[in-house]
Amino acid sequence: MAVISHQVSVISGKVVVLAGGVGGAKLAHGLAQILPPDQLTIIVNTGDDFEHLGLTICPDIDTVLYNLAEVNHPEQGWGRADESFHVLEEAKRLGHDAWFLLGDKDIALHLLRREMLDAGLSLTEVTLELARRLGVIHPVLPMSDQPVRTVILTPEGPMPFQEYFVHRRTKPVMLGTRLEGLAQARATEAVRRALDEADAVVFAPSNPFVSIGPILALPGVRERIAAKPTLAVSPIIGGQALKGPAAKMMAEQGLEVSAVGVARHYAGLVDGFVLDAADAGLAEAVEALGMRAFVTDTIMRDKAGRKRVAREVLGFLCAFIEEDEEGGVFSVQ
Amino acid sequence: MAVISHQVSVISGKVVVLAGGVGGAKLAHGLAQILPPDQLTIIVNTGDDFEHLGLTICPDIDTVLYNLAEVNHPEQGWGRADESFHVLEEAKRLGHDAWFLLGDKDIALHLLRREMLDAGLSLTEVTLELARRLGVIHPVLPMSDQPVRTVILTPEGPMPFQEYFVHRRTKPVMLGTRLEGLAQARATEAVRRALDEADAVVFAPSNPFVSIGPILALPGVRERIAAKPTLAVSPIIGGQALKGPAAKMMAEQGLEVSAVGVARHYAGLVDGFVLDAADAGLAEAVEALGMRAFVTDTIMRDKAGRKRVAREVLGFLCAFIEEDEEGGVFSVQ
Repeated sequence: MAVISHQVSVISGKVVVLAGGVGGAKLAHGLAQILPPDQLTIIVNTGDDFEHLGLTICPDIDTVLYNLAEVNHPEQGWGRADESFHVLEEAKRLGHDAWFLLGDKDIALHLLRREMLDAGLSLTEVTLELARRLGVIHPVLPMSDQPVRTVILTPEGPMPFQEYFVHRRTKPVMLGTRLEGLAQARATEAVRRALDEADAVVFAPSNPFVSIGPILALPGVRERIAAKPTLAVSPIIGGQALKGPAAKMMAEQGLEVSAVGVARHYAGLVDGFVLDAADAGLAEAVEALGMRAFVTDTIMRDKAGRKRVAREVLGFLCAFIEEDEEGGVFSVQ
Repeated sequence: MAVISHQVSVISGKVVVLAGGVGGAKLAHGLAQILPPDQLTIIVNTGDDFEHLGLTICPDIDTVLYNLAEVNHPEQGWGRADESFHVLEEAKRLGHDAWFLLGDKDIALHLLRREMLDAGLSLTEVTLELARRLGVIHPVLPMSDQPVRTVILTPEGPMPFQEYFVHRRTKPVMLGTRLEGLAQARATEAVRRALDEADAVVFAPSNPFVSIGPILALPGVRERIAAKPTLAVSPIIGGQALKGPAAKMMAEQGLEVSAVGVARHYAGLVDGFVLDAADAGLAEAVEALGMRAFVTDTIMRDKAGRKRVAREVLGFLCAFIEEDEEGGVFSVQ
């Protein structure tokens, strides 16, 4: 039996991480610091994508790309470092209601994306090419090449995600979500292949409803994941989300606003659940849901912190898989 | 009979000016300083339009808009004053071959155009809205809402206009031009109405082949213009073009590279032809083509110079029309 260690530095299995938002990008960046490109695939939510100011903007993809390329804004997590806003300032002067912050460097990427999409490339091809140009070596895959758009159902009526999230600052009550375009969408072949070849799947500490949810909703994804050793990292710590509206959404849907509430949401699908040290007391309740609980400090404050959490996650995965499969692929060298 | 004067400040007729390039924008700006919006319509070439870096760029329209709004780059004539290039610099870092100079303010306009086109507005509607937002009060009309793309035929093969003009700096020999999309294009209703209602038509000192030519090529335009008093301002002075490849193109097509060559090109269509003072000696040769020749200093060095030339042109038009029609609409008050 292999040694289980938090100092694990080389593992031989293939990991797929599902990501959305800043938490997803952080964990993906941590994993990318440890695993080579043939062992890590990042599948990214595209439900947040939208058309704005003549651009096709893919916030979750871009946040992953910018973080993996280490050109992201250091504090806010999304957007670019050393950014300027000359285009947006002029657009405002010309009457544009600039509720979505678009920097000049960010716009350059959106324009290249638009040009490639217009030339007939798929979003997957475009994303891989943009990743290459940014120097990102790990495969970053949009969940689908067909547009899926998360719509937040509110008492004011349905609201496109970015309208709800950015323009309205998540103020409206979320009654539920609707994924527009889902009936015409499918997981890309690259996504399906990555999941088929994966030795383990990790759910990043992303919003369960609007980041992980759309990926799981695509036909063929949930059953592929259910067949794999799967570990989720809680996006809720001490009853709060580090970032974003996950906690508010849980409360509005009558769910228990805690890591246990998230674990319950994933019950039957994930085999392991990572709790923050602040929630160590919830481990028993999580295990009562039929999954293994792991506890560590999950807050990723900087580059090293991301790597540390990723290493912990891989360590948990080793333990977890080796328990199920003697001589599992996540051997420590 | 009305007084013919270069001090003419109010005329009651409706003028349509055909424009393309910087010369067109300059004369349009001069006319716009004199004539109110209900007496001046600017019809702009769209044969230079192209798709680049995910944007739909309309160089001739934008040059007219920027000049009329007085936000144009003071020296180069096209583009914006006080411009920055942050987007283009980042796009270059991301592998974009940035042979077409796109400033941040310029990109803001292109993005708004793109957003409006994507929303289903016609190029005419978009252009009028952009004009409004820039504070331009005169109607600026694209010649067509259907894309017409000027292709330069060269010994190296056909070349999209901007490829020839900007990327290749007009180096290849022009064997001729082809207007792609012409069969599916028509002059807009607004263009046809403006021409029908016009009391006179002015050809700005624009390139006869790639600025004025595409407008004239649209079905219904040439015959409407032929029915009106029409005055062309020579873009060739002393055998040279002030700007652009007009002289080179004339030579390559075996035409006489002079104002007379241009006048001959327009023979049968225009009734009057404005020569620069430097070409005063060519007046007789121009009149031999069956049109009236007028001579003045046609170089528009600054805002006042544009107004001065516009006033001269209107003065010539008065003389010209009043000669044909007693009590013509271009009466001087």
